[in-house]
Amino acid sequence: METLFEKLKDYAGSEIYPCHMPGHKRQGAGALPQGLAELDITEIEGFDNLHQPEGVIRQLQQYAADAYGAEETYYLVGGSTCGILSAVSAAVPRNGRLLIARNCHKSVYHAAYLRQLKLSYLYPKQVPEIGICEAVSPRQVREALEREPDIDGVLIVSPTYEGRIAEVAEIARIAHSHGIPLIVDQAHGAHLGFHPSFAPGGSRAGADLVVVSVHKTLPAMTQTALLQVGGSLVDRRRIRRFLQIYQSSSPSYVLMASIDNAVRLAWEQGEKLFGEMIRNWNGMLRQLSACRALTVWPPAALPQEEYQRHQDIGKLVISVKDTGITGEELYRELLERYALQMEMACDGYVLAMFTIGDTPQGYQRLTDALLEIDSRLQRAESEKKPETSVKETESCAETARHRGGLPLWEGWDSSAQWIALEDAVGRYVGEFINIYPPGIPVLVPGELMEEADRILLERYLSQGLNVQGVSVKDGIPGVRVIAGMR
Amino acid sequence: METLFEKLKDYAGSEIYPCHMPGHKRQGAGALPQGLAELDITEIEGFDNLHQPEGVIRQLQQYAADAYGAEETYYLVGGSTCGILSAVSAAVPRNGRLLIARNCHKSVYHAAYLRQLKLSYLYPKQVPEIGICEAVSPRQVREALEREPDIDGVLIVSPTYEGRIAEVAEIARIAHSHGIPLIVDQAHGAHLGFHPSFAPGGSRAGADLVVVSVHKTLPAMTQTALLQVGGSLVDRRRIRRFLQIYQSSSPSYVLMASIDNAVRLAWEQGEKLFGEMIRNWNGMLRQLSACRALTVWPPAALPQEEYQRHQDIGKLVISVKDTGITGEELYRELLERYALQMEMACDGYVLAMFTIGDTPQGYQRLTDALLEIDSRLQRAESEKKPETSVKETESCAETARHRGGLPLWEGWDSSAQWIALEDAVGRYVGEFINIYPPGIPVLVPGELMEEADRILLERYLSQGLNVQGVSVKDGIPGVRVIAGMR
Repeated sequence: METLFEKLKDYAGSEIYPCHMPGHKRQGAGALPQGLAELDITEIEGFDNLHQPEGVIRQLQQYAADAYGAEETYYLVGGSTCGILSAVSAAVPRNGRLLIARNCHKSVYHAAYLRQLKLSYLYPKQVPEIGICEAVSPRQVREALEREPDIDGVLIVSPTYEGRIAEVAEIARIAHSHGIPLIVDQAHGAHLGFHPSFAPGGSRAGADLVVVSVHKTLPAMTQTALLQVGGSLVDRRRIRRFLQIYQSSSPSYVLMASIDNAVRLAWEQGEKLFGEMIRNWNGMLRQLSACRALTVWPPAALPQEEYQRHQDIGKLVISVKDTGITGEELYRELLERYALQMEMACDGYVLAMFTIGDTPQGYQRLTDALLEIDSRLQRAESEKKPETSVKETESCAETARHRGGLPLWEGWDSSAQWIALEDAVGRYVGEFINIYPPGIPVLVPGELMEEADRILLERYLSQGLNVQGVSVKDGIPGVRVIAGMR
Repeated sequence: METLFEKLKDYAGSEIYPCHMPGHKRQGAGALPQGLAELDITEIEGFDNLHQPEGVIRQLQQYAADAYGAEETYYLVGGSTCGILSAVSAAVPRNGRLLIARNCHKSVYHAAYLRQLKLSYLYPKQVPEIGICEAVSPRQVREALEREPDIDGVLIVSPTYEGRIAEVAEIARIAHSHGIPLIVDQAHGAHLGFHPSFAPGGSRAGADLVVVSVHKTLPAMTQTALLQVGGSLVDRRRIRRFLQIYQSSSPSYVLMASIDNAVRLAWEQGEKLFGEMIRNWNGMLRQLSACRALTVWPPAALPQEEYQRHQDIGKLVISVKDTGITGEELYRELLERYALQMEMACDGYVLAMFTIGDTPQGYQRLTDALLEIDSRLQRAESEKKPETSVKETESCAETARHRGGLPLWEGWDSSAQWIALEDAVGRYVGEFINIYPPGIPVLVPGELMEEADRILLERYLSQGLNVQGVSVKDGIPGVRVIAGMR
């Protein structure tokens, strides 16, 4: 089957003249490169319609379904965001109740807001060695469903942003035994299942709806994703309805072509490409095991079985615990001294991402930089004043517990006012308060701010982290709280 | 100010190594072109964050606001669809009432569904010469607002898909005199205001929220748009909230760069570029005035003032009324014999689009083809059997009147069953029934199907038009109707 890029390229070479949008008419203009414009068409003869696929897009979607072991797959040009909005809206009735991992992406909260859902939370444990969030466990899900029989659906994140993998098959069985669907936010796991060393993807593990960001770990353009569907617990018609609602009615063929490209590469050449990646990855981990101050996760000695069950390949967490520097400082040093742009920095660690797109030189540059920084940190260790060290490493995803208050949609729709952070303890917040990236909420609208939250937020701010929902007035950081509610 | 494309290109040439997504690591892979991948980054140092802009994206958005005479402008990577969803959600409270032109885009209906809005309709008149929908008039809006004082907001389409322009300034004054905001779906008018011969854009005319598809009439990539904001009737915080909800949290920089490109071209070189376009356009209309069978709109003799007030430049409507052929047949002939891909075909006409991206040869090819087809149609005229002719030309946008039933959200959420079209008269539909393109509803969920609707739909089907919401079982076309409701 011809790739969509090839088909677009062939069309660009045809004599057919475009009396239609887009306005560039497949010609470069100003700074718009010709090579980009010539691939950018709209729904014209022979190119099908994403919202009613009967031709090439239908074939490509079926190919992707086969690749991931799903019954149906939908191309998404609005990223995993529109996949999550659609999956949640389709799987749970308006005003229903959804069980979610607290460290899920903000789009899950947004879906709950739009659909006036009630939320129940699973609080991930931490991986003790490194201080990142663990994936939620089957036991947590089982206990929650037994405790709250009115739950209409379950949503988990696997792999997590930091690379922890849940036991999806077991969690799917538990959800199904309660007659409800399991949605897996697999945004970070488009590569799962394409190499024998990887865990299987959510669809092969029996999840009903699986959202996969193709661009995150495969060679696709930013903002591309897939929604994979299986089973009979979610009405397919509802899925298509919400995809039409949340996605552009002028979807980009360039984005779609890049989805096609990524899925083909993974399925047709995955064993070879991921095999090389695993060799580079293991080589890096072996060298980094020499670090004495920085803690690197996953460790080089992790058994193969752990990779197949609990740990993703490609997400390198570098903890600064007990080193005397913050994650943000390590991030800056890697960027400014070594020209290495990390994926994310938070309080306790930085995150680096590797994919089949990386070169051996890329692995080596990060390895060398970390070893060099590590050797300096060891020297700094003895000079370090205890009172300036970060006493405890907290995960970016660690969040305040859900305490009373209002449901999300009511809290967010309430009249709210700005108040200095130091006065906000004991008040109910009217906005999301997130650390970005990865955009996991510390507090959800309608929740009570406690003293521990205030301390956490002030520390994040002092480290220059990007705390969404906190705004500064006259030099004073503050948040919006629900008026009149204490 | 450096263009975003230049900035991305410069970055691609830097030595900074990407330990972050996207997975292609700025390298081509498989069929993904290198020239595309190298421009495709994520939120990294120096490139700001669309959802919390403080750097380059903030500057570009301010530039766009200045270009369009808005107070604020937001870049949209989910097309006008996400702009409409955000504008409606922000401007009207949940459960509120919105006054809309019946021929508005399906995203307006989707927003009403999500937010459980009640809808009141303005039914556009027809342009008598050509049978397309007229833009709604100030008088229609005034009368509706006097009749229904509980309306919370007004949404109009201008220009329409077929190029008719509303008196936005007057309609804005009327809405404001009732203390409610005006949203303009200006998806087809990104070019307005950039040449003295054009009508002004919605923001300069005083509309509160204006949604503009940059890709439709300017040289930007498909799926790009802008939301322009002015006045104080809509809470800016709510606008930002809904943009975060409806847009990808991994927005494409390639799409954003193409928005920048289009806005700059229009503002800095618009007078020259649109001046050339107008000359080509007028030349084509003069030649096409020789048509004897086909009717072309706008006519060559249209006074300049009409272009500044009521008629867009660039949308050519070619009516087949009384020619003995359908719009779909003309569309096929233009494509298959002349290699001219039209924008749209419907029952009574085809639509061709011209922008600053067109070449003089493009205008000439369409002109020559239409004149040749027209000369053959004249000959066919005498042979034409009266009973096979299309007796009356209806606009694709002409729709059944809104008749009782349920509110949209309730109708769409009701249990529905498939029924043969011939049995559906007297039943309430459970799905949208649209002609695509342009995706304007014939029937909205919860509305009664009448005999006239059935006849109209069967004619569309017999012409091979794409009627969404009608499905075929065992060769019989049918629709979904609300179970048990008559």
